Amino acid sequence: MVKRYLEVTPLEKVPEVLAASFALRPVTVRVPLPEAVGRVTAAPLFARFSQPEVHLAAMDGIAVRAGETLGADEQHPLTLSHAVRVNTGNVLPEGYDAVIMIEEVWQEGERYTIRKPVSPWQHVRPVGEDIGVTEMVVPSRHRIRAHEVGALAAFGIRDVEVLTVRAGIVPTGSELVPFGQDPGPGQVVESNSLLAAAFLEVLGARCTRYPRVPDDPPLIRDALDRAVRENDLAIVSAGSSAGTRDYTATVIGEAGEVLFHGVAMKPGKPVILGRVQGKPVIGLPGYPLSALTVLREIAAPLLGLWGLPLPEEERLTARVTRSIASEPGTTEFVLAAVARVGDRWVAEPLSRGAGVQMAAVRANAYLRIDPAAEGVEAGSPVTARLMVPRAEAEQALLLTGSHDPSLDHLADLVRPRVDLHAASSGSLAGLLALGRGECHAAPTHLLGPDGSYNTWYLERYLPGTGVDLVCVAGREQGVVSRDGLGLADLPSHRFVNRQKGSGTRMLLDHLLAERGISPSSILGYHREMTTHLAVALAVKSGEADCGICVYSAAKALGLAFVPIGQERYELAIRREQMPDARIRALVAAIRSPVFRDRLAAMGGYDTTLTGVQRGLP
Amino acid sequence: MVKRYLEVTPLEKVPEVLAASFALRPVTVRVPLPEAVGRVTAAPLFARFSQPEVHLAAMDGIAVRAGETLGADEQHPLTLSHAVRVNTGNVLPEGYDAVIMIEEVWQEGERYTIRKPVSPWQHVRPVGEDIGVTEMVVPSRHRIRAHEVGALAAFGIRDVEVLTVRAGIVPTGSELVPFGQDPGPGQVVESNSLLAAAFLEVLGARCTRYPRVPDDPPLIRDALDRAVRENDLAIVSAGSSAGTRDYTATVIGEAGEVLFHGVAMKPGKPVILGRVQGKPVIGLPGYPLSALTVLREIAAPLLGLWGLPLPEEERLTARVTRSIASEPGTTEFVLAAVARVGDRWVAEPLSRGAGVQMAAVRANAYLRIDPAAEGVEAGSPVTARLMVPRAEAEQALLLTGSHDPSLDHLADLVRPRVDLHAASSGSLAGLLALGRGECHAAPTHLLGPDGSYNTWYLERYLPGTGVDLVCVAGREQGVVSRDGLGLADLPSHRFVNRQKGSGTRMLLDHLLAERGISPSSILGYHREMTTHLAVALAVKSGEADCGICVYSAAKALGLAFVPIGQERYELAIRREQMPDARIRALVAAIRSPVFRDRLAAMGGYDTTLTGVQRGLP
Repeated sequence: MVKRYLEVTPLEKVPEVLAASFALRPVTVRVPLPEAVGRVTAAPLFARFSQPEVHLAAMDGIAVRAGETLGADEQHPLTLSHAVRVNTGNVLPEGYDAVIMIEEVWQEGERYTIRKPVSPWQHVRPVGEDIGVTEMVVPSRHRIRAHEVGALAAFGIRDVEVLTVRAGIVPTGSELVPFGQDPGPGQVVESNSLLAAAFLEVLGARCTRYPRVPDDPPLIRDALDRAVRENDLAIVSAGSSAGTRDYTATVIGEAGEVLFHGVAMKPGKPVILGRVQGKPVIGLPGYPLSALTVLREIAAPLLGLWGLPLPEEERLTARVTRSIASEPGTTEFVLAAVARVGDRWVAEPLSRGAGVQMAAVRANAYLRIDPAAEGVEAGSPVTARLMVPRAEAEQALLLTGSHDPSLDHLADLVRPRVDLHAASSGSLAGLLALGRGECHAAPTHLLGPDGSYNTWYLERYLPGTGVDLVCVAGREQGVVSRDGLGLADLPSHRFVNRQKGSGTRMLLDHLLAERGISPSSILGYHREMTTHLAVALAVKSGEADCGICVYSAAKALGLAFVPIGQERYELAIRREQMPDARIRALVAAIRSPVFRDRLAAMGGYDTTLTGVQRGLP
Repeated sequence: MVKRYLEVTPLEKVPEVLAASFALRPVTVRVPLPEAVGRVTAAPLFARFSQPEVHLAAMDGIAVRAGETLGADEQHPLTLSHAVRVNTGNVLPEGYDAVIMIEEVWQEGERYTIRKPVSPWQHVRPVGEDIGVTEMVVPSRHRIRAHEVGALAAFGIRDVEVLTVRAGIVPTGSELVPFGQDPGPGQVVESNSLLAAAFLEVLGARCTRYPRVPDDPPLIRDALDRAVRENDLAIVSAGSSAGTRDYTATVIGEAGEVLFHGVAMKPGKPVILGRVQGKPVIGLPGYPLSALTVLREIAAPLLGLWGLPLPEEERLTARVTRSIASEPGTTEFVLAAVARVGDRWVAEPLSRGAGVQMAAVRANAYLRIDPAAEGVEAGSPVTARLMVPRAEAEQALLLTGSHDPSLDHLADLVRPRVDLHAASSGSLAGLLALGRGECHAAPTHLLGPDGSYNTWYLERYLPGTGVDLVCVAGREQGVVSRDGLGLADLPSHRFVNRQKGSGTRMLLDHLLAERGISPSSILGYHREMTTHLAVALAVKSGEADCGICVYSAAKALGLAFVPIGQERYELAIRREQMPDARIRALVAAIRSPVFRDRLAAMGGYDTTLTGVQRGLP
């Protein structure tokens, strides 16, 4: 019924297809001046009157005729009979041409005495000092800044014709419930039309979100026709892929024509570009990060063709912390957390799942991998495109290592001066990243063969590096289940594990060895989760019967928890970086009473050692 | 009645006064999610449900039980009896734990045959892959980005508690007419409350503009009381100076107390900070640039104390093109146009008149001169704080030299890739700036002793520099008057001149010498204007009877014009900079048909040579 992508369009070709396929003329809307901040002028704005319109006093003092002040000096003070008291901003009376500051005048009633002459036009704001009637205030395509509103109002401008594009967004999908309702089983909140509207409105578009349409071609067709009729650009959200219920391409093809279906980029490959009644129609993929990529890489350049100026993102060169595979011939976009560690920038790639919206929430940058490349090797330089102002990227603090729910609370407590990004790679990978200078701190809880926490591994893996350990808390690990299972129950139940190199997994292996339980006897030993809550969720959903995680994760989901041991959860930080303002803020947050309160509320933490710092050579 | 500033507060002291004088607690407001873009979270946002809430198919294909696929291979294809056809995003049926891509399945009716086994959870989006219920989505004090709206909606967030401050703004002044009305003689449009509201709302405040109040203390007092009652912060606009009708300080003092009146900064010195009912009250000076400075230097830090994060402006080091005098003990702020010329940044200071709002419209940066300094010498490095994104500052093209109204049209035509800033310094000063590498192009029209335009001066002042001249137009200069005066009438009438070094003035001097008219015989010969329109305005307003300017300025104001000669108005550009994209765009704009049309509409231009380029060694 729906064709596979027989031919995908290279992303580099998209701009020429856009430019060649549509004759787009600027769309404008007139908005009242106070609402024009951030909007872009469609035409130059000219002053409707001069500012000032008449000569004004520029000082508090007396208005005089300069010619009548000639001859005044210390020996020959002059008393003026025609002087007029004026305040700053007063209209200069007819025939007067100068102002003498009140401080330089001896006043008795209405009589003013001066001791030096003045030149004509002294302390006078002449007509048009600020602007003359008919002069251009701002050119076209100018983004109006907040502080310009006062000037524009003063020059007689009341409303402004600004550039826009009317975009109509049609969400499709039988599984959708409208924003504002909670989804039932198997349903999801329709959110991509909100994403598209928010994204495009920042660029200057005026968006209409139409009611969601079920997966029914005639209904989709009706909604598309309406969106095309009422707008300059129509966007059909979802149904652009090649499943049995993906009707978007067919509907666009019947209403007009499909210009391309499938672009060699990832995420966002299933995008459709169509033309209906001469107007562009975009078929937006349903995965949120695919949708976001299409909005940025295809919809935004299209708005540019209507004349809307697109803000340029800042770029910087960063060292990528992990290798990224990519498919040759495809432009790949990878969300990342960038941070300045010491004197260089590092980029930590985030999850590449097109459905993982949290990656875009956590990202402050993205990478673009050229279709000619086969990927990027760990440690090599990449160009990161910032999704935040550079000053905000400078505040990024990168933690790589073991995950704990309390890190979210630290991220909250260090705001707004510090922007904490936590990458869950497991304790050991975190220490190695710290060794390579690829993070600011490594959260770690590694039980050494000598029974010590963290120190044995640090001495082995980062000898002589000069690392300090700052304790976040002692924390309880245990078996999470729906019905109170313990360690001995693992072989007889379905289990979910944590990833290799994580302290939790190493603790489990240690305990299993102590008890003589073979990992191969445990069903699901190889099923790996990267966070405590993911383990608890797998148990909660019935995917598994038990797992291992911290108490707070079990508690958050109302699950049973059988403790198996307390461990020391610490941050490893290079000593040379302790003076960094971001690290100081992090340590201060750990030591704050409010953080202890939060740990207590989460449960399962022992705060005796919280904030304690110890050093290793 | 009103005291002079007996004691001004140093600007560096202001933050501690603010912090010590008020106990400010975060103010919040709940806004629907779609309106939350750009707003700042008052508290962390937590996921209300997991995403996905159930296991979903991550591919189009068939849902299977992985255990039942064991043993399938090329030799032993396996036909599955329980497989279920699923599309991407479909709920995985109960008991199923993997998806096989449709491309890898041989289908006959409802029977599906596979040739290899799958592992559990292949192509499945497990519960909570994106986020788990109870997890933190964003921390507090987080500015919500457009692309996060989709994620937040998907995670069940419908409205957001964001930080704000309620600010009430009371404009005072008997001379004011409300925004939306045209001012009568001696009146001005009330624009400072719009300025304040626009400025503070970008930072997250919710502003109420109250009706304007005449200069009458009891009425100001009533309005102040209401603004304090209904808001967290009250701003009284104007009346903060020391004129006979400046009541603001007195009224604030009677309603509560004045904490300081007068800060050692310029512009903005007459600012008042008061406390009424424990709430801060700012007396905003009436001059627009004073008001803007107070908003940026005092009101914004105050909003910061309520918790609103203040965007950090980017900074860069630039060479200042002119010396700037400053008063020791006073922090001076100077608006500037910065541009990258070759490989370094230059900063062209703009008018320092506190009433010249166009300086803030034209500025893309400002300088802050330390109170310990006595000014800045021309050519020395200064820190410029950008008022635009850095990428936009990179687009700045700086023209220094002779003024012509057509430059505004060029500024319009080079948008949006180029941001043209024209500084009116006169032709000769422009050429010298070009020689020092302090501008991209110098508009010039200098009649040499040999009768040639521009070349004689270039050979004399920039020998061997390698300069190209690009002709903007031939243009007609003449005597502007209300009643048709000519050159011979100058000695018997009041005249306004252009500044020394301007081509117009040199042309005048040449013609006066030819006719044997002595400059000293001309009343107003020393009265200098920097633009053609300013000359025409002085004549229009009756300040002078005649002046000298281009035809288009006389025409714009409907004045009489008696031609005195045509001259060659050209841009001098260093040849090495001709390949610069900004310069190429400028030259293309000069050569465009639409520019010729605009010149024709303005009148007084001969476009025969428009766009013609000639080189000098």
